[in-house]
Amino acid sequence: MKFKFLSTVGLSLLALFGQAQQASWIWYPGDYEVWLSTKMQNRRTERGSFFPPFWKLDAHYVTVEFSKEYDLKAAETIEVFTEGQYNIKINGKLSYPYSNKITLQPGKQKINIKVYNQAHVPTVLVKGKTINTDNTWKVTFEDKEWIDETGKASDASATLYLPAASWNFHEPHEKPSQFKLATRPEYAVSKDKTAGGELVDFGRETFGFVKIHGLKGSGDLDVYYGESKEEALDKEYCETLDKVRVGLPQKRDSVLELSKAFRYVNVQPGNGVSYDSISMLYEYLPLPNRGTFKSSDALLNKIYDVSVYTMELNTREFFIDGIKRDRWIWSGDAQQSYLMNYYLQFDAPSVTRTLYALRGKDPVTSHINTIMDYTFYWFIGIYDYYLYTGDKQFIENIYPRMQSLMDYCLGRRNKDGLMEGLTGDWVFVDWADGLSKKGALSVEQVLFARSLEAMSICAEIVKDNRAGEYKKVADDLKAKLFRYYWNQQKGAFVHSRIEGNQSDNVTRYANMFGVFFDYLNDEQKKTVKSNVLLNDKVAKITTPYMRFYELEALCALGDQKYVLDQMRSYWGGMLELGATSFWEEYNPDKKGTEHLAMYGRPYGKSLCHAWGASPIYLFGKYYLGVKPTGPAYSTYLVEPELGGLQWMEGNVPTPNGLIKMYVSTKEIKISGDEGSGTLRFKSRKKPASAQGTITSVGNNVYELTIQSGKQYAIKYTAL
Amino acid sequence: MKFKFLSTVGLSLLALFGQAQQASWIWYPGDYEVWLSTKMQNRRTERGSFFPPFWKLDAHYVTVEFSKEYDLKAAETIEVFTEGQYNIKINGKLSYPYSNKITLQPGKQKINIKVYNQAHVPTVLVKGKTINTDNTWKVTFEDKEWIDETGKASDASATLYLPAASWNFHEPHEKPSQFKLATRPEYAVSKDKTAGGELVDFGRETFGFVKIHGLKGSGDLDVYYGESKEEALDKEYCETLDKVRVGLPQKRDSVLELSKAFRYVNVQPGNGVSYDSISMLYEYLPLPNRGTFKSSDALLNKIYDVSVYTMELNTREFFIDGIKRDRWIWSGDAQQSYLMNYYLQFDAPSVTRTLYALRGKDPVTSHINTIMDYTFYWFIGIYDYYLYTGDKQFIENIYPRMQSLMDYCLGRRNKDGLMEGLTGDWVFVDWADGLSKKGALSVEQVLFARSLEAMSICAEIVKDNRAGEYKKVADDLKAKLFRYYWNQQKGAFVHSRIEGNQSDNVTRYANMFGVFFDYLNDEQKKTVKSNVLLNDKVAKITTPYMRFYELEALCALGDQKYVLDQMRSYWGGMLELGATSFWEEYNPDKKGTEHLAMYGRPYGKSLCHAWGASPIYLFGKYYLGVKPTGPAYSTYLVEPELGGLQWMEGNVPTPNGLIKMYVSTKEIKISGDEGSGTLRFKSRKKPASAQGTITSVGNNVYELTIQSGKQYAIKYTAL
Repeated sequence: MKFKFLSTVGLSLLALFGQAQQASWIWYPGDYEVWLSTKMQNRRTERGSFFPPFWKLDAHYVTVEFSKEYDLKAAETIEVFTEGQYNIKINGKLSYPYSNKITLQPGKQKINIKVYNQAHVPTVLVKGKTINTDNTWKVTFEDKEWIDETGKASDASATLYLPAASWNFHEPHEKPSQFKLATRPEYAVSKDKTAGGELVDFGRETFGFVKIHGLKGSGDLDVYYGESKEEALDKEYCETLDKVRVGLPQKRDSVLELSKAFRYVNVQPGNGVSYDSISMLYEYLPLPNRGTFKSSDALLNKIYDVSVYTMELNTREFFIDGIKRDRWIWSGDAQQSYLMNYYLQFDAPSVTRTLYALRGKDPVTSHINTIMDYTFYWFIGIYDYYLYTGDKQFIENIYPRMQSLMDYCLGRRNKDGLMEGLTGDWVFVDWADGLSKKGALSVEQVLFARSLEAMSICAEIVKDNRAGEYKKVADDLKAKLFRYYWNQQKGAFVHSRIEGNQSDNVTRYANMFGVFFDYLNDEQKKTVKSNVLLNDKVAKITTPYMRFYELEALCALGDQKYVLDQMRSYWGGMLELGATSFWEEYNPDKKGTEHLAMYGRPYGKSLCHAWGASPIYLFGKYYLGVKPTGPAYSTYLVEPELGGLQWMEGNVPTPNGLIKMYVSTKEIKISGDEGSGTLRFKSRKKPASAQGTITSVGNNVYELTIQSGKQYAIKYTAL
Repeated sequence: MKFKFLSTVGLSLLALFGQAQQASWIWYPGDYEVWLSTKMQNRRTERGSFFPPFWKLDAHYVTVEFSKEYDLKAAETIEVFTEGQYNIKINGKLSYPYSNKITLQPGKQKINIKVYNQAHVPTVLVKGKTINTDNTWKVTFEDKEWIDETGKASDASATLYLPAASWNFHEPHEKPSQFKLATRPEYAVSKDKTAGGELVDFGRETFGFVKIHGLKGSGDLDVYYGESKEEALDKEYCETLDKVRVGLPQKRDSVLELSKAFRYVNVQPGNGVSYDSISMLYEYLPLPNRGTFKSSDALLNKIYDVSVYTMELNTREFFIDGIKRDRWIWSGDAQQSYLMNYYLQFDAPSVTRTLYALRGKDPVTSHINTIMDYTFYWFIGIYDYYLYTGDKQFIENIYPRMQSLMDYCLGRRNKDGLMEGLTGDWVFVDWADGLSKKGALSVEQVLFARSLEAMSICAEIVKDNRAGEYKKVADDLKAKLFRYYWNQQKGAFVHSRIEGNQSDNVTRYANMFGVFFDYLNDEQKKTVKSNVLLNDKVAKITTPYMRFYELEALCALGDQKYVLDQMRSYWGGMLELGATSFWEEYNPDKKGTEHLAMYGRPYGKSLCHAWGASPIYLFGKYYLGVKPTGPAYSTYLVEPELGGLQWMEGNVPTPNGLIKMYVSTKEIKISGDEGSGTLRFKSRKKPASAQGTITSVGNNVYELTIQSGKQYAIKYTAL
C-alpha cells in the first residue's frame, strides 16, 4: 500500500527533493484527462445506440514539446519512446536518430522532444541513468521558436511552459493510450429459466463484461441487462442491451465488447446459437480504501459498507455519476465524490483527473455540463482539493482555466449582479417535482459566492493580483444574499428573486449551504433549523444528492443523533427494498416498480449512483469528526460525535498517512501520522489522558493537541 | 470545366434554389481544414527528421451533431455512412438501427445524427432520393439538449448552429479522411554517374514521390534531394533526404513513402542493394487554370508560364509557401496566393481552406503563425475573398473567429493605440538584412488599419452592430498614421516610431501599401514615387514577396512600363541563372552558389516559392486591368495598360465565367460572362465600337459598359 501512495500522491513530493526518479510517460497537463474522458463517456449506450454527452467535448493539443536541461557528469545513453511521431533536439540542433537510443556527452545537455499525435495524446517516455521523464520536465503546445534569415533562433521567452503531467505509466509497454481498468472473474449466484432464455443473478449490483462460456453457432444472441429483475426481463424497455452476432463453428468462451452495469442478465440465444454458462469479468480501478468506519449499530455498518461499494463502482477512469447511466462525469455528482474520497480512498489523481476532464478547454461555450450550479461546484471542488491535499502545482496548472470560466460567469450576471439563467443555461439544483427555476435563485448565489471565495484563495496561492478583486465581489454578493433573499419573518432565505421581488416560497437549498458555509450567524442558523430543515411543510428532498448537504447542515448544527435516524430511515429504506447499492433517487412514498422509473422511462432510474454514498463523508467528517484546517492536514481538527452510538472506530486518510480513532462513551483513542491536530470533545466529568495535556475550554469542552506519531488514549464521560 | 465550377463554387448557389442535390460528406466548418492542415504541415522533414510548425496546432471538435428537417411526400429509404461512431434520432427518438439503411415515413421527419471521431474529423454522408447531406444541413458541437426527470427535452434554443461544410467528397468510398492529392508518372530527362551512385535530373523543379524501379537486395539506399545540382550532390548539407531500409529478395518497383521537392535526385545504393532506374510520381491538386495571359514579349510570356508553374506546385491541400521548405501555411505568403489565384485558378475552396487552416481555433494564443503582420494579412485576405467571390456564408461562418482575433489585437495596442511588438510577437515584414523591428513600425499600422476596415465591412455583412466601432478605430488609426509617421520633408512615411519619435530612416513598405490602399492623396503618391519607390538610396527589396507589393504600387501609379522592365530584369534574372520556378529570395548582387544559401544554411533557400509568381496577378489586374468593384464581379472595372507591349491577350476568371480580352495598340476585344463591367481606356483619337456606346470622360479617357454575354470590339489609338 505504501508504494501506491508514492506512485499516486508522493511522486510530486519526491520531485521536490530532486531525487533520481522512476521514469514516467509524460504529457501536457489536463490533456490525458480530456482525451480519456471523451473515450470513456462515449462508451455510454442506450439500448445499443451510441449515446455521447450533449456538451462540447474537447481535444488534446496534437503537437507538444517536452524539454529539460541536464548537467551530465558522465556520458549517458537514453532510450526514447513516444506515442506519436517525434523529433528530438539536443542543445538546439535536430538530432537525426534512426534508432531510439541516443548517447549524450558530459556537460550541459538541453533536450527538446516534439511529439505529434492526432488520435491519442502525444506522450514521451525517456529512460536513462539520470535522465528520466517526470514532472520536472516542462511541456508547451506552442514553442514560438522561429529562426531568422541568418539562422539565429528567437529566444522563445514568451513560451508558456507547464510542468509535464503523468500518472501511473512507467514502462515502455505501459502506453497511456492503451490504459484499461483492471478485471477479475466473478460468478453468478443463481439462474432461472425464462421465456426464450435464462435470467442470471449476480447477487448484487455490479459492473463488468458479460462472459459467455462455450458460445457456439450461427445467429443472434441478445443480452438484456437489469439493475432489477423487472428491468432485465423487460426486453422492450430495459435501458441497456447487447445484440451479439454469433458465427462460431466451434465452442468459444466469448467476452462481450462493452462493460455494463447490471445485477441480472437476461440471456436470449436465437435459433442456432447455444452456450454453456454465463459469468462475468468485474471491471474496476484498483484503488485501496484507506478510510474505514465501524460502529455499534449493525444497520449503520451495513449502510457504510453499501456506501463504500457504491463509491467503488462509481470510481473508475474518473468519478462518474452512475454505472448504468449516465456513465458520464457530472460536476455536482463529482463534487460529492471528491468529498467522500477524502474519507475513503484519498486518491488525489482521481480528483484532479475529474476536475481536468470537467473543465475541458477554452473557449468556454457553456457552463460545466451546461449547468450553472455545476460550474460553481467545480470551483468549490478545487478549493476543497487544495485544503485536503496541499497540491499547489495543480492550482497553478489549472488557474488560467479557473480565470476564463469565472470571467464567463461574471459576464453573465444580471443587472443586480446576480446569476440568473440565460438561454442555454440549465439551472438544475436538484431533481425535484415542480421546482421553479424562475428568476435568480438563492442557492445559485450562495454557490457563486463560495466560488468567488475559492477564486480569491487560489489567486493568492498563484500570486495573481486579482485576489482582492474576487474577494470584493464575493463580499458584495454575500451582502446581497441577505439584502435580497433573507426574509426576517420566515427566518430563512427565500427560494428566488423574480424581477426585483422575493419569491414567496422557501426551499431548503440555500439555507442548507448557508449553514455549513458559515454564511449564517448563530441566530439565523437556529431559525433555519426549525423553520426549514426540521419543517415538513418545506418541500422534502427526494434525492440522496441534496440529502447529502441537508444532513451535512444538520450535523454542522450538532444534530448528529437526528441525522443517524434519518440515515437509518432513508438509506435503510433502500436496503429494505433490496438495494445492494444506493440509488439516484429515493422517494419513500413510492411503491413497487415506481421505484425503478425516472425520466419518463420505467427503468430510467440509476440504482447505483455515487451521490448515494454520503454516509462515508458524514461518518468521517461529522462523527469521527475529522477535518483539515490547514492545507494537506498540516493542521486539523477532530470533534468526535457519537450521536447516540455506543462506540465507533475508523481511519481517516491524510495525504501520507492515517488518523486512527476509537471512540466510545468512555474512551477516545487517537493517533495521527502527520500534521498537528486538535482533538476537541465534550465531557461531563474532567477527562484524563496519559499522553499530552488536556485543556478545558469551558462549557464541558476540552482540547488536546495531537502530535504526529504519538498514540493518545483519553478517559472521559460522554454527555 | 463547367461541372467543376458547380462542384466548387456553385453548390451553394444551387442550394439557394432548393434543388435536390448531389449528396456530400459534410462536417463542421473549418474542422476538416484544421485537421488536414495539421496532417499536411507535419509532413515536413529536415534531413529525415519530423519537423512540425512551432505554433499551436488545433484539433477538430471530436463529437458533432448534424441535423435537418424534411417534409416527405412519400416514404423514403436513406443510407447513412459516417467517419466515426454515430447515433441517429428521428423526430427526437433514438433509432436503434443495426443496418445503415433507414426507411422514413411521409410527413415531417427531423433527422439528427451525432458522430464521434478522435483521429479524424467526424463526418456523415446520407444518400436518398430527396434526403441528401449537403450545405443545407446544420451542424453543432454542442447541442445542449438535456432532458428533465419527466423525460421532457429542453428546447435547445441556445444551440449555435452553422450550415454544414463540404468539399468534393460525394460517394461512400470517397472518405474525407482518405483524401490524397492526385499523382501521375513523370520521367527523368538525364542521369549521370556520381561517386557512390547516380544523379538523376528531372529537368525542372518538381514535386512528388521518387519511384525506384526494380529495387532489390538487403541494406540501405540513400536518396539526397536537390533543387539544384549542388544541393543534391552535397550529402552533408542538402535539406531533405530519405534513407530507405531495403529488404527485397525479388525485384520490386518501390515508391517512397513521402513526396518531396526536387529537380535532382542523388541516389546512393549501399552494398547489397541494386535497382534498374529512377522515375517519379508527380503529385498535384487537380485544378484547372482558368486564367491565361500571353503577349508580344517572349520573355514576359516565359515569366508568366514559369509563374503559373510555380503557383501550381504551391497550390496543394492548401496554398503553401514553398515545396522544399517550409511546406507550411504562412499567412503573408497565402495572401499573395489568394490574389494570384483570382487571376489564375479562381478556386474559392482553396482560399477558404487556407483561411480556416491559418486561423485555427480559439483561444487565440499568438498572432497567426506568431507573426503580427501575418495576422493582418489574414483579415485583408478575407475582405478580398468577399469582393472576388461574394461568398457571404463564409463570412458568417468565420466572423466569430475574426472577432476574437481582432479582440486579441486590440488588447495588445500600446498606449498610443499602435501595434508594437510584445514578447512572443514576431514582427516579420520581410527578409531584409538589418531591418529594424524596434518601436511601432509604420507598415504594421497600415496593415492594421486595413484589417480594421475589413472587420467593419464584414461586420456589416453579418449585421453586427460593432461595424461602426471598427470603422472608427480604423479612421482614428489612419489619422495617426499621418500624424505620427508622415514626414513632410521626406515626403514619405518613416519606418518606425520609437518612444514617441519618428525614426530617421525611410523604408518602402508602408509607402507601397499606402499607394494602392489609397491612403495617400495624389500629391503624397507623387512624392512617395520619386522619394521612395524610384529612389535607389532607399534600401532595396530582395524578396519577390515584397517586390509583389512594390510593383503593385508602381502599377497603381501608372508605371506599367517601368514595372515590365523590372520584371524582365528581376524575374528574367532568375531565369538566366537557370531557374525553372521562382525563388524565395533573389539578390542580383549575389554570385554562384551564394544564390542557394539562406538561414545560415548553404541550401536553406527555397527555389520554388509561391510568392515568386506575382506576374500572374500583376498581368491580370494591372495589364489586362481587371478588378471587381462589386462582390462576385456583379460590377467590375477593366483598365487595360499595355506598358509598351505590342499586344496582349488573356482570360480573367470570374466566379462562374470568364472575361476574355485581346488588347493591341489599335484594338480592344472584350467579353464577360457575368456581371456588368466598365471598360476604361485612353485613346489619342476618337474610338469606335460596333457594339455598345462609348462615352468620353475627358483627358483622352473613354468608357464602355460591358454587358454580360456580349462581344465587344473597339477600334482605338493607344497613347
